[in-house]
Amino acid sequence: MARKHNEADDPQSLVLRLPASTPLPLESGLDLAPLQIAYQTYGTLNAAKSNAVLICHALTGDQHVASENPVTRKPGWWANMIGPGKPIDTNRYFVICSNVIGGCMGSSGPANTDAATGMPFGTDFPVITISDMVRAQARLIDHLGIETLLGVVGGSMGGMQVLAWASLFSERVFAAMPIACAAKHSAQNIAFHEVGRQAVMADPDWRRGRYFEAGVEPVKGLSVARMGAHITYLSESALQRKFGRKLQDRAAPTFSFDADFQVESYLRYQGMSFVERFDANSYLYLTRAMDYFDLAADNGGSLAAAFRKTKTRFCLVSFTSDWLFPTTDSRQIVHALNANAAPVSFVEIESDKGHDAFLLDEPTLFRTAHGFLDAAASARGL
Amino acid sequence: MARKHNEADDPQSLVLRLPASTPLPLESGLDLAPLQIAYQTYGTLNAAKSNAVLICHALTGDQHVASENPVTRKPGWWANMIGPGKPIDTNRYFVICSNVIGGCMGSSGPANTDAATGMPFGTDFPVITISDMVRAQARLIDHLGIETLLGVVGGSMGGMQVLAWASLFSERVFAAMPIACAAKHSAQNIAFHEVGRQAVMADPDWRRGRYFEAGVEPVKGLSVARMGAHITYLSESALQRKFGRKLQDRAAPTFSFDADFQVESYLRYQGMSFVERFDANSYLYLTRAMDYFDLAADNGGSLAAAFRKTKTRFCLVSFTSDWLFPTTDSRQIVHALNANAAPVSFVEIESDKGHDAFLLDEPTLFRTAHGFLDAAASARGL
Repeated sequence: MARKHNEADDPQSLVLRLPASTPLPLESGLDLAPLQIAYQTYGTLNAAKSNAVLICHALTGDQHVASENPVTRKPGWWANMIGPGKPIDTNRYFVICSNVIGGCMGSSGPANTDAATGMPFGTDFPVITISDMVRAQARLIDHLGIETLLGVVGGSMGGMQVLAWASLFSERVFAAMPIACAAKHSAQNIAFHEVGRQAVMADPDWRRGRYFEAGVEPVKGLSVARMGAHITYLSESALQRKFGRKLQDRAAPTFSFDADFQVESYLRYQGMSFVERFDANSYLYLTRAMDYFDLAADNGGSLAAAFRKTKTRFCLVSFTSDWLFPTTDSRQIVHALNANAAPVSFVEIESDKGHDAFLLDEPTLFRTAHGFLDAAASARGL
Repeated sequence: MARKHNEADDPQSLVLRLPASTPLPLESGLDLAPLQIAYQTYGTLNAAKSNAVLICHALTGDQHVASENPVTRKPGWWANMIGPGKPIDTNRYFVICSNVIGGCMGSSGPANTDAATGMPFGTDFPVITISDMVRAQARLIDHLGIETLLGVVGGSMGGMQVLAWASLFSERVFAAMPIACAAKHSAQNIAFHEVGRQAVMADPDWRRGRYFEAGVEPVKGLSVARMGAHITYLSESALQRKFGRKLQDRAAPTFSFDADFQVESYLRYQGMSFVERFDANSYLYLTRAMDYFDLAADNGGSLAAAFRKTKTRFCLVSFTSDWLFPTTDSRQIVHALNANAAPVSFVEIESDKGHDAFLLDEPTLFRTAHGFLDAAASARGL
């Protein structure tokens, strides 16, 4: 797993390093410095710097949105959405995607080396929030000399970042597309995250977050966390259609605790492959950031106040079978935007694929993203 | 936790011990012998032995259905349903409840001492199924001299046993009431169970099931398993109503991994209290039994065939917000019974409390159980 760790300090990406003299003030009251942001870009920024689209990634995503991931050697996680001639067309737009802070792919996070000790920060890294992630991204956008992004697009935790962008920096976001997300994390979602964190922390190899020093990793705990979370990303009907009660390479049950059922084998694989690429502490920090997300609470209890006088145009997307961020969550955001008379469209896409639908081949999603950005580009005179 | 372990071998219950000469043939092909069944009874068996009602307990339930649990010192788990003057009235009926085999409260299970070694069976205990549980219960009913049970009633895994009773021993079941269950375990439910098992088995203190010998228990793993399972027993709306995003004894988030949210604190408590009373290996065995349950597969792929020529009268109950065993699961059973022209009533109860509703104060459930057994008793001339 050496490769994974190299990515934290020395990522195979573009990197912005800001010195200790320009710390990032965090919601917790602490400062984050120095700040490191790893990112990828696709396409060309035009002379007016008006064609930039920022993609915000989900909990276990990264900056490798449309090109090969250097750790997994797999295509980018949204390669079906972004690229030349794709719905978000890199022949036309300058696409930026950065690793969130708290992540483990090169932006400042618990796996990065603390210069003061020469060891990874581990749980000495400060707890961060969705707003902190967005403020860090704003530093990158400053660095790129971009005043106003044409679009900010993301799903799940990425959608939360889109909402935070539109709330904190409305004047810098021409068009916002939050997909399969919510303005606050629900009790059930906090509960699922807490189980995942407890699974990691129950692993004796977690060692209160200082596992690197011992040359171990809480791979079993992180694997269990991923298995549980993965169930929530799929719908019941998708699991039924894909696996049902089919047995794995056997004609009859073995009357044992082996992975008799295909769905068991599938989940075990999901767990094992995840730990090859992800840092356990990052998993704790990023789930925590999602739990803390509550845009109304940040604005005196009013979600409408979060978007006061917004000039951003919005397109919200939800999926019928997404039970992690159901359509009602998106509808609440639409109502808050309506209260501000903001330009907003809302598409509920019929899909039985659950929350993960936003990452899959969903023609309606592709058409929606393409059309929304196209209209925004026209409105901006592109 | 000494008390918990004493219950396995020497329960504070009535106990039926059957010698090695009368083994219980299991679905796996193995024999279980000697067979021990711990049980409780309430009320009085009438001279005709026609007023007996068997209660089948759920995954983490036990035989202490209507009297104080000797381990937890809490009231019986269905004390609101069963007792003198209660919906299932022990002034009228003779109520029997036995610990399932594979359990840890006195019926044969992995925590029981293997006479051959003087140590607990652990994972040397054979994997058992819902049908095996029911065949063991039939031995107890034989022992009590009861030919035909007036009623067999249970929810969740208990409901699966009710269905197996009606399928295997229709002539011995006058009336059957399966609550909040399914004729087969779904892919999603197998998936959740597998995550729980992996959490237990990931705990180094599990020691491949031989933890007793080392004087330890996989309490962290079992606690994580329980936390995850507990989420599935509640509805999203119940979690929202009960906890929402309320903080636990604090005015603001701590920016840490403490249990800031009430729902986190609640889940941690659920996990910690569960391990005080339950055996980790039993958890593996009983979840596995539920996973293997597929009444149609046991009958050549036809659920209708499972109830061929049944003379049992049925009452099925589901709850609108139960996403673990949704109404559609009960409806499939109703259809299979209709195909046999069996007398069947079906009640879908409006509740936002999720799967656990069957254990809570649900007046409609109480009325339904009371009315159904009353009608059965009348039909039987009681």
